[in-house]
Amino acid sequence: MRNSNRQWRLKRFPEGMPVEDDWELVESPVPTPGDGEILVRSLYLSVDPYMRGRISPARNYAQGVGPGEVMTGGGVGEVIRSNHPDFKAGDIVESFQFGWQDFPILKADGTRKVDPALAPIQSALGYLGLPGLTAYFALLHQAQIQSGETVLISAASGAVGQVAGQIARLKGCRPVAVASSAEKLAWCRELGYDAGINHRTSDDLAAGIAAACPDGIDVFFDNTAGPIHDAAMQNLAVKARVIVCGTIALADKFGQPDIGPRFLRQIMVARARVEGFLLFDYQAHYETARRELATWYRDGKLKHREDIADGLERTPAAFLRLLHGENFGKQLVKVDSL
Amino acid sequence: MRNSNRQWRLKRFPEGMPVEDDWELVESPVPTPGDGEILVRSLYLSVDPYMRGRISPARNYAQGVGPGEVMTGGGVGEVIRSNHPDFKAGDIVESFQFGWQDFPILKADGTRKVDPALAPIQSALGYLGLPGLTAYFALLHQAQIQSGETVLISAASGAVGQVAGQIARLKGCRPVAVASSAEKLAWCRELGYDAGINHRTSDDLAAGIAAACPDGIDVFFDNTAGPIHDAAMQNLAVKARVIVCGTIALADKFGQPDIGPRFLRQIMVARARVEGFLLFDYQAHYETARRELATWYRDGKLKHREDIADGLERTPAAFLRLLHGENFGKQLVKVDSL
Repeated sequence: MRNSNRQWRLKRFPEGMPVEDDWELVESPVPTPGDGEILVRSLYLSVDPYMRGRISPARNYAQGVGPGEVMTGGGVGEVIRSNHPDFKAGDIVESFQFGWQDFPILKADGTRKVDPALAPIQSALGYLGLPGLTAYFALLHQAQIQSGETVLISAASGAVGQVAGQIARLKGCRPVAVASSAEKLAWCRELGYDAGINHRTSDDLAAGIAAACPDGIDVFFDNTAGPIHDAAMQNLAVKARVIVCGTIALADKFGQPDIGPRFLRQIMVARARVEGFLLFDYQAHYETARRELATWYRDGKLKHREDIADGLERTPAAFLRLLHGENFGKQLVKVDSL
Repeated sequence: MRNSNRQWRLKRFPEGMPVEDDWELVESPVPTPGDGEILVRSLYLSVDPYMRGRISPARNYAQGVGPGEVMTGGGVGEVIRSNHPDFKAGDIVESFQFGWQDFPILKADGTRKVDPALAPIQSALGYLGLPGLTAYFALLHQAQIQSGETVLISAASGAVGQVAGQIARLKGCRPVAVASSAEKLAWCRELGYDAGINHRTSDDLAAGIAAACPDGIDVFFDNTAGPIHDAAMQNLAVKARVIVCGTIALADKFGQPDIGPRFLRQIMVARARVEGFLLFDYQAHYETARRELATWYRDGKLKHREDIADGLERTPAAFLRLLHGENFGKQLVKVDSL
């Protein structure tokens, strides 16, 4: 075990698309847990698109990270020392409060035990974690997908998209993928997606979506915003629901004033509903969802793909891969071995 | 009574903002009604923002008007000759199928008798017609406004807005007006609006809305799109509902490709819901709504203001006043006297 704690601290708020130099790796002593606190050794860290919103001075749904502070993020790790009766050394735990570091100090509140016998421990950051729950609630609770509907999913092979496509299929819908490579689209086919559009090679994305969704889009699960969004909005069926879940395509436009009224006419003509989605609003239902997702996985109905970077020092690079759409599957960072 | 039928026919699809020369006034003989048809003398014509959408080759929710065809529109008139058992000469009727002309031929289906003893006959084009029903269903059925909520209404003194503000007040909400002149805002105060913003004179519309809606906007009834929309979107309360009902501010941008993903982040952060609204979806409930609106008017709880242009020859000019926001209240054209 290491005898120092490496931390990735934010140097400054990025302007537009972040670069690796916006963080710095700082070494400090392994911290000591206070009363009721838990010292944890990081095993896996998750990097997720939402993190772009946390390093911006703009209004957001959660507290951001300021310059000089340790970068925020969820992870899975092993308890080293516990000053809380619910946890003991050797427990595997998951929390959104790890931060990009070797040795986080966690509060019991917000820390959840992970059973390593049930599934690979990093699943708690994938189909059983934030991405899986996001797909679950966005489609089943918010959009209320119905059998027979056409469900267009952007970032279709990503952490959220791959679970979403399979849930749509399980519910008798027709999932259609938008992804950035032929390789990703081939994986989408394996997951049960019915059709796919490569947005990097498409000459006319709106026409491509129209061809793949001849009766229009009933539910558009938007994980990117940007040009994919614009093209999808031209193909909404009447009473379509658009779930605005991710805005990663706007990563290089952060802090710019918000514009964009022209597409409203498409919403009006289709009587579509556009809704912002935030997973935390569904907190009371997490356990039900995890149970159902785990059952699907165990029964072979749910596949899951990960993209694992090796070593804490690669954390910003892994995050940037994600912002640039270079990852394939749920992007994780393996910090240490169990 | 005239012995010829003047008709305003579309000459060409306007590019951007229409001009009066996009129509021409053509004289033809008074038509003869066929089997089951009704010949009507136009008394009032309504000009409404939706008409901009009808003279565009772009996709819309209803059949458009092509070059050479009589311009579409609703009206109130007197039956001259009826070949249908439900109507007789002298009846006052209302229909969306008048068109801009002296003597429309109507089908019984879609034609509704108006009782001149109940209210001035042109009310059937105002608070008891398309604008009143729009305000009613948008706020009560679609947005489901709740007592205590802040309801921001654009084009607040217009045909729809003036009814909407009063309904919001009747339901215990706090209506806030956006309008284009001090005179219009003074009228909004009389209607029960709690605060108002003049978007023509405001230096910083987003800040003005923030000041008038310190707890954020719970329901944004968007009758314009454009810069007012952009400013409102920066002030959404969590779980806000935005009803996209009118897009008149886009009148000079028709036919341009749809853009606008950046404001999606505001929707996501606020978990707001944006919905397209089309009155016709509520057809089964029109009569209930008319009854309630008429009761409010009779009880002095609902005021209504009209802006009447005199003479069929002024119809395109009246429509253009509306597109430029120069009208004050429900814009009508008086064609003939009862």
